[in-house]
Amino acid sequence: MSRVRVHCFSVSLDGFATGVGQALDAPFGHAGGRLLEWFAATRTFRRIHGESGGNTGTDDAFAAGWEPGIGADIMGRNMFGPQRGPWADREWKGWWGDVPPYHNPVFVLTHYPRPSIEMQGGTTFRFIDGGPEVALKMAQETAGDLDVRIGGGPSTIRQFLAADLIDYLQITIVPIVLGRGERLWDGMEDLERRFSVESVTTPCGVTHLTFNRAR
Amino acid sequence: MSRVRVHCFSVSLDGFATGVGQALDAPFGHAGGRLLEWFAATRTFRRIHGESGGNTGTDDAFAAGWEPGIGADIMGRNMFGPQRGPWADREWKGWWGDVPPYHNPVFVLTHYPRPSIEMQGGTTFRFIDGGPEVALKMAQETAGDLDVRIGGGPSTIRQFLAADLIDYLQITIVPIVLGRGERLWDGMEDLERRFSVESVTTPCGVTHLTFNRAR
Repeated sequence: MSRVRVHCFSVSLDGFATGVGQALDAPFGHAGGRLLEWFAATRTFRRIHGESGGNTGTDDAFAAGWEPGIGADIMGRNMFGPQRGPWADREWKGWWGDVPPYHNPVFVLTHYPRPSIEMQGGTTFRFIDGGPEVALKMAQETAGDLDVRIGGGPSTIRQFLAADLIDYLQITIVPIVLGRGERLWDGMEDLERRFSVESVTTPCGVTHLTFNRAR
Repeated sequence: MSRVRVHCFSVSLDGFATGVGQALDAPFGHAGGRLLEWFAATRTFRRIHGESGGNTGTDDAFAAGWEPGIGADIMGRNMFGPQRGPWADREWKGWWGDVPPYHNPVFVLTHYPRPSIEMQGGTTFRFIDGGPEVALKMAQETAGDLDVRIGGGPSTIRQFLAADLIDYLQITIVPIVLGRGERLWDGMEDLERRFSVESVTTPCGVTHLTFNRAR
């Protein structure tokens, strides 16, 4: 049965999944690249982005979960780009270059729908105005038997968690204190009761947590 | 040289070190005993509180760091008891029974000083009105060559961290989402830059972090 999954979603010790001051050259604002350093160092991340090398230890085992079995993605518009409100710059096609690593339809949640953007490699950005249930229904119809991946950012994850739509949530705690930004855990009191939770720390200092929907 | 240490200080995933609704029978408010379950299960904790048994694995290795080499303690008054403002109930002598586990002077920070309370086993609660520097000076004069332990709660730890007075900080992340309470990390942006940080997860699911002052 098709599942809804979140992978490699990093937060600081104080629970921020992104900093403040997002801009074209700073997708995570003042957090810079610190939340994703562990991911960027893995062989999986480098391969996905057309590069070679990278480590193949425990971090890579978690990174490798990101890819297989996905038929559609959902992300918030802040994950797609730094623009807010009506789309002023229609040339912007995401942070991922000409060949994004998704290779399937990506549903971008926005109150300002616009025509789809077809990218190389099978990724199509589709802009839809709807809540988590509506978006998930569209994504699941597209994905068929495959899973749906929720990318982020934090407010999108929170919406899907609040609606109890996520089956698998893999969070990585990075041992830094960001101080400012957008929190993942707000409004999620007792979240752990709906999941079976495991944790493991790796030599680079991060802690990977897996939340699997309790049966 | 005498150091200032924090041990076994537990926080939830969302960074709360205590819940809301502290009361005589609920030192951690709505968090109940969940933040200290890992600690209470150790042989060290049980021995300190006059009980036998308890596990002797990795959690106990961290628990065991709590005790040796301490000459004085400092704690906030909310850690001493649930009363706020002037002391209405002078019979209250802390959560720890007739023989508290400190066995040395404990400086309780309060804006309402009162006479010291001498307990069995060497613990004396001394109530002082002063900031972290003043309290630490008094504690260090008492402790001599031994270390000073800062117990909590979160606002006390934050005050000492803000004043850069802590040499060793051992935090335990418990994989629960409390949702409400008092946060440890607020105002601590970039804290990790002043410390060397290590992390390890144990089979019960908690992650122990050690922050050692960077040299």
